[in-house]
Amino acid sequence: MCGITGYIGHKQAYPIIINGLKRLEYRGYDSAGIILNENNSFKLKKTKGKVSDLEKICSNLNSTATVGMGHTRWATHGIPSDKNSHPHLSNNGKIAIVHNGIIENYDTIKKMLLSKGFTFQSETDTEVLVNLIQYIQDSQKLNISTAVRVALNEVIGAYAIAVIEVDQPQEMVVARLSSPLAIGIGDNEYFVASDASPFIEFTKEAVYLEDGEMATITLKGVDVHKIKDNKKVNPIIQELKISLEEIEKGGYDHFMLKEIHEQPKSIMDTMRGRLLVEKGIIQMAGIWDYQEKFLNAKRIIIISCGTSWHAGLIGEYLIEDLARIPVEVEYASEFRYRNPIITDEDIVIAISQSGETADTLAALKLAKEKGAFIYGICNVVDSSIARLTDAGSYTHAGPEIGVASTKAFTAQLAVLTMIAIKLAKHKGTISKEKFNSLLTELESIPVKVEQVIKDTEEQVKKIAELYVNVNNFLYLGRGYNYPVALEGALKLKEISYIHAEGYPAAEMKHGPIALIDENMPVVVIAPKTTHYDKIVSNIQEINSRKGKVIAIVTQEDSQVKNIVSQAIEIPAVSEYFVPILASVPLQLLAYDIAVMRGVNVDQPRNLAKSVTVE
Amino acid sequence: MCGITGYIGHKQAYPIIINGLKRLEYRGYDSAGIILNENNSFKLKKTKGKVSDLEKICSNLNSTATVGMGHTRWATHGIPSDKNSHPHLSNNGKIAIVHNGIIENYDTIKKMLLSKGFTFQSETDTEVLVNLIQYIQDSQKLNISTAVRVALNEVIGAYAIAVIEVDQPQEMVVARLSSPLAIGIGDNEYFVASDASPFIEFTKEAVYLEDGEMATITLKGVDVHKIKDNKKVNPIIQELKISLEEIEKGGYDHFMLKEIHEQPKSIMDTMRGRLLVEKGIIQMAGIWDYQEKFLNAKRIIIISCGTSWHAGLIGEYLIEDLARIPVEVEYASEFRYRNPIITDEDIVIAISQSGETADTLAALKLAKEKGAFIYGICNVVDSSIARLTDAGSYTHAGPEIGVASTKAFTAQLAVLTMIAIKLAKHKGTISKEKFNSLLTELESIPVKVEQVIKDTEEQVKKIAELYVNVNNFLYLGRGYNYPVALEGALKLKEISYIHAEGYPAAEMKHGPIALIDENMPVVVIAPKTTHYDKIVSNIQEINSRKGKVIAIVTQEDSQVKNIVSQAIEIPAVSEYFVPILASVPLQLLAYDIAVMRGVNVDQPRNLAKSVTVE
Repeated sequence: MCGITGYIGHKQAYPIIINGLKRLEYRGYDSAGIILNENNSFKLKKTKGKVSDLEKICSNLNSTATVGMGHTRWATHGIPSDKNSHPHLSNNGKIAIVHNGIIENYDTIKKMLLSKGFTFQSETDTEVLVNLIQYIQDSQKLNISTAVRVALNEVIGAYAIAVIEVDQPQEMVVARLSSPLAIGIGDNEYFVASDASPFIEFTKEAVYLEDGEMATITLKGVDVHKIKDNKKVNPIIQELKISLEEIEKGGYDHFMLKEIHEQPKSIMDTMRGRLLVEKGIIQMAGIWDYQEKFLNAKRIIIISCGTSWHAGLIGEYLIEDLARIPVEVEYASEFRYRNPIITDEDIVIAISQSGETADTLAALKLAKEKGAFIYGICNVVDSSIARLTDAGSYTHAGPEIGVASTKAFTAQLAVLTMIAIKLAKHKGTISKEKFNSLLTELESIPVKVEQVIKDTEEQVKKIAELYVNVNNFLYLGRGYNYPVALEGALKLKEISYIHAEGYPAAEMKHGPIALIDENMPVVVIAPKTTHYDKIVSNIQEINSRKGKVIAIVTQEDSQVKNIVSQAIEIPAVSEYFVPILASVPLQLLAYDIAVMRGVNVDQPRNLAKSVTVE
Repeated sequence: MCGITGYIGHKQAYPIIINGLKRLEYRGYDSAGIILNENNSFKLKKTKGKVSDLEKICSNLNSTATVGMGHTRWATHGIPSDKNSHPHLSNNGKIAIVHNGIIENYDTIKKMLLSKGFTFQSETDTEVLVNLIQYIQDSQKLNISTAVRVALNEVIGAYAIAVIEVDQPQEMVVARLSSPLAIGIGDNEYFVASDASPFIEFTKEAVYLEDGEMATITLKGVDVHKIKDNKKVNPIIQELKISLEEIEKGGYDHFMLKEIHEQPKSIMDTMRGRLLVEKGIIQMAGIWDYQEKFLNAKRIIIISCGTSWHAGLIGEYLIEDLARIPVEVEYASEFRYRNPIITDEDIVIAISQSGETADTLAALKLAKEKGAFIYGICNVVDSSIARLTDAGSYTHAGPEIGVASTKAFTAQLAVLTMIAIKLAKHKGTISKEKFNSLLTELESIPVKVEQVIKDTEEQVKKIAELYVNVNNFLYLGRGYNYPVALEGALKLKEISYIHAEGYPAAEMKHGPIALIDENMPVVVIAPKTTHYDKIVSNIQEINSRKGKVIAIVTQEDSQVKNIVSQAIEIPAVSEYFVPILASVPLQLLAYDIAVMRGVNVDQPRNLAKSVTVE
């Protein structure tokens, strides 16, 4: 997944494109490139590295061009290198492309083009596509827009592309299938980007292309049509609501640390207007409007990826435990390809911070086709998943920039907790007293999260110092805290490159325990809730093998504290709320270790913020 | 989990107990001990280490005692050490105990005993129990059998115990709760052991204690009663069918290697009499007798642990795909503690090689209480799970001794495949033609497994040499091969102590990809089946980050072979059967790497063959 951006108008294109790329770096930062059309001549600069590296090689560019495109890459085909960077040019040097996505049948097309005498500079699928466009244009004598359309009908895969032709400096052709693309509508100027952030200071009006649509953009306007049959589409112009301030670092060293600290607020924001303790209700329109569907559902299937999948697992425990509706949690990537059993009595809930996760989106489409009622839990408003679902609940965590998800995760937990409690009340599976006490306790969680950050931040830093040079970690938990263990391990893995693995504590004996010796720290989430005695036994088993245990414990705990190397305290809460509190010190631990190891925690290697390819 | 054994009769007890312990070492081998009652005086020897270490310190024992007990330990409380080894003595030196299991409330009892002036030599829960017995005997003036019974009514936990008293050389008291215990009935002599293997050459008759039962054994006979209320129980004497030859190594360096090579036969044995290709039927009484239950099941829930859990995940894909019945797979340890939603319309299938896995057994009991129909897939005949279930299908893989499960796993897959195909036929979800072609293909699998072993054994050894010093591995697969990746990683982890982790291939991008660099080998199961193009894209992504890919590919594959470091070929089969074939080279890879690293692959550290504690 990559970020693409483009400009066509009357201003100097270069600074607009460079600034846009910087805002899109959350989508990938292996390499970056820019192309400008200056007096019917292409100026192309590209390099392995980040946008700041691109800026360096552009320092004496001095371009006055008013048309151009840029790209920041997250490699899918070919290693990050100068020659694999985008934009790519066709063999005749006349067509340039930037591309986000994967062309799956590039191998077949490449062979055909090689047989026609084409040559290739890079290992990318993108260079195959741009040459296919040239081949079609030349052989069928078509204009660029039509050539692009014919070419796209030949390819299998996912893409958002922007194409310009050297002889047509007033025209840009864009298209989308499965990867997002927004067109900003300015005053006699147009912006193209993977999301609206690159042009937010220039215009508040945008058109989001739908799957299978393409647009030809000139100074006269935007002409949208279907890729398949060229049918004209009337684009819907939307008003943008995000602000620039929302995407700044505000005093913290990293976005991730800022976002960890924002959690008391982001959880509160997510509950605001919904958790009405005084009225004794949880107000969620998405659930309320489809109450009957939820209460009669045979099964709820939660589909998601990565951190959101962990939130889903906790959601499973919450909903089954409180509302007694069977829940299954599936990896979106597995679900979509295995002919899943779905009926119109099922509810499918998709969880995705970005709302653009390719596998989740595709899985959701499949579920919709099979007649399921589909519900979204997304953070990004108007994202593809949010627009596809029948109903949903946004997490109001604000923009999350750090690649390792923190505040979006706890906000997802807040939404899932509210859904579970609300369904339980309507289903009558919990008493009125229990409902009210859960409401009161949930309301206190943001303050408790704040307390956890305050109480543990310095201690966690000291613990991080002890383990900074360790190369392997295990994370264990039972019940509600098994997914917390998975998430804790994922955080460490993502940003410190330490091989950390989460397991349900009791599974340790079925294999992972062989890894344990004096060099293997084990993080155990051991609050004083239902499984306490069992987890104490598990810690004893680790101690018997000389493993070092770092435990998350309840404040009044005495037993675990005495048998572990380090104990991190969280306030006593019902087991339903432990995951939110216990996740916070684990986020801090991952952050501190990564910073001490010198990793750029906001942009760890190989990763990207939203995974918009399969 | 530990192994316990005992003897009371007219022969010399020492050699019988030592040989018995050697056969029980699959249950744990941290430390070992023996106690003999010679002329109303205890002779006690125990040591950290294996049974062979115990033998060394017993070399000049020369005991003629005809009563004694032995223990081989897998530590739960306290590190493996001489003083933590069993047997343990009471403070007055008169009572000795061997124990398999965990006393959960040992802490409370210990405090009480300390207040009464008792002292403790070890950190074990077992020493607490034997002193509780002394305390009760002394304070209430009870015989040993009654004192044991009263004490057991005070403890919470799981146990199989044997107790002898120095002044009663003709008596042994045994009891069981959640841990297995067999009593061999000889000619004026009696044997006690965790399973029948220690006494198989002396008698073919045995009594298996049920949960909550205890027995007082004297030369006059076996007196069984309930622990709770002392009610008399008439024991059922069973005839044993296992043979000694079945538990020998037969020419191979390790049991594990022998068991890998046995797979063509063990899969064939598992299908024999069931897969009747000429008659065009699959004959499985357990399914046939409860056909209606299966066909009307709302859900099938598979519960298991470790390797069996991986078999369950493949079972989910098979049953959902072919028979279109929703399946959920749960970790037994998680399922049992989370108030799962189970109704009498659900079918719960337990998978366990030993049939004694504590968590699986407990989960199954819970499901039975809730009214579910319960079905077992076990390898050990008459094991606790096999006896508890309403119906079941044995895997006829023969005794599996290597701690890392191999042939039991592929036999489980054979059973699950037959169940899925049979249900699909009865449900009408596959055509008669497809049914027949699946039957024919399944029949050919043992020969293909043989071919895979023959074709890949040498190649895998060479690959192992390349990666023997690597400390981390990733394993990736999609669909049917995602659980194969998990299982491949578990094998390596168990016996080589390399941190290997399995993932669904598409999840890599949501975190684990951060781990990939030139030092991280990635095993990818990439057969030419449904997900081929997707997995090719995943391999490209790994290559882009310089990871080294070892791929399992189909023989006629050309694309993957050209882009990976090493390709291991398996014959082309339908995707349903790929897991069986693909698992074999992964077993060999784990075995070869572990042997090259000098690990005792049959007895890797910290592990035990059957996990009979939680």
